[in-house]
Amino acid sequence: MTASPAPPSRFARVRRLPDRGAYDRASIEAILDAAPLCHIGHIIDGRPVVIPTIHWRVGDTLYWHGSSASRMLEATPGAEVCLTATLLDAYVLARSGFNHSVNYRSVMCFGRPRALAEAAEKEAALEHFIEHLFPGRWRSLRPPTMQELKATAVLSMPIDEASAKLRTDGPHDPEADLAWPVWAGLLPVFTMRGAPMPDPHTAPGTKPPEGW
Amino acid sequence: MTASPAPPSRFARVRRLPDRGAYDRASIEAILDAAPLCHIGHIIDGRPVVIPTIHWRVGDTLYWHGSSASRMLEATPGAEVCLTATLLDAYVLARSGFNHSVNYRSVMCFGRPRALAEAAEKEAALEHFIEHLFPGRWRSLRPPTMQELKATAVLSMPIDEASAKLRTDGPHDPEADLAWPVWAGLLPVFTMRGAPMPDPHTAPGTKPPEGW
Repeated sequence: MTASPAPPSRFARVRRLPDRGAYDRASIEAILDAAPLCHIGHIIDGRPVVIPTIHWRVGDTLYWHGSSASRMLEATPGAEVCLTATLLDAYVLARSGFNHSVNYRSVMCFGRPRALAEAAEKEAALEHFIEHLFPGRWRSLRPPTMQELKATAVLSMPIDEASAKLRTDGPHDPEADLAWPVWAGLLPVFTMRGAPMPDPHTAPGTKPPEGW
Repeated sequence: MTASPAPPSRFARVRRLPDRGAYDRASIEAILDAAPLCHIGHIIDGRPVVIPTIHWRVGDTLYWHGSSASRMLEATPGAEVCLTATLLDAYVLARSGFNHSVNYRSVMCFGRPRALAEAAEKEAALEHFIEHLFPGRWRSLRPPTMQELKATAVLSMPIDEASAKLRTDGPHDPEADLAWPVWAGLLPVFTMRGAPMPDPHTAPGTKPPEGW
């Protein structure tokens, strides 16, 4: 393993199993980009509230969006959040229940998001969102109206206080368990793309996004 | 749609797009059982912290576990958490960026977990965990030791204050957009099981769990 930057704060430091922690920007960005969604924790009226959403990244900034009327977004600007994105890669089956584990990649980002104010700034961010998921699609869409941009809240947060945590190995059974007569190893799981299902108004012959 | 129970609290009520909310136990349990992992929000030193973990359900109780030394578990018993589990089912491509969406199933559960105290109670819960993922596996494993049970914290939380939210439809473009010449419809995503990868100590001919 190459030298890795130090954790940016006490909060972002991986405490349990610290050798699974990574603080370099490349690890963090790769996981954020690969995760199809994230879960964002807010404190609302003193209670933790965790809401799933889709994030996207532009350089060292994270974005997410929603309706201007949503509970998540009305409480969010300026208040602290924790954005966590996780990919499950495999079940790790050992010879005892205790040594079972999972292989995963996870990133946790702390910060205070701001709400984008200008329509042009929102539009640019939303273009990145669509392009991140479906390269080339934005210019093929009916362009956004001012009313749509007004109804859409876009939040941004710099990736400052962040850490990655991952496990990538087979089972770690102690020597004494290795002869136990049970199957042990990795059961991989991964996300598949299913066949595109055009809606009834899509003209025959129109192509779905590349790669689907 | 059949009549659905009322939301159990102001917090668990789905505020945005309330027709996507569901409060009946069957919907909530089905999503919790299908989701391979969840994200749990805690308040630690006044800050939201969202940690991914694997949950399991026995009747109307949720469980999760970890090391007795973990940050999540040391802060958790008695304090309020929000456990959210989400499945992404499809990208919903519309003719404008604004009408893009996703089909998903999500459950949010609020509560104050308790830590299981007795070794026997922990062992029973952990058996459910393994059996939920790999039916029949528990009895084939090297049994847990007292030391392992001591090192394992198991938390439980009743499914009281909970709600489900889901979207299952195609794109909702306004009439005026329907002729826009772009592909629109559903791009399904789903989780696949990969080929089992036995570790080098698994005897040849030993079978992986059923279904893998």
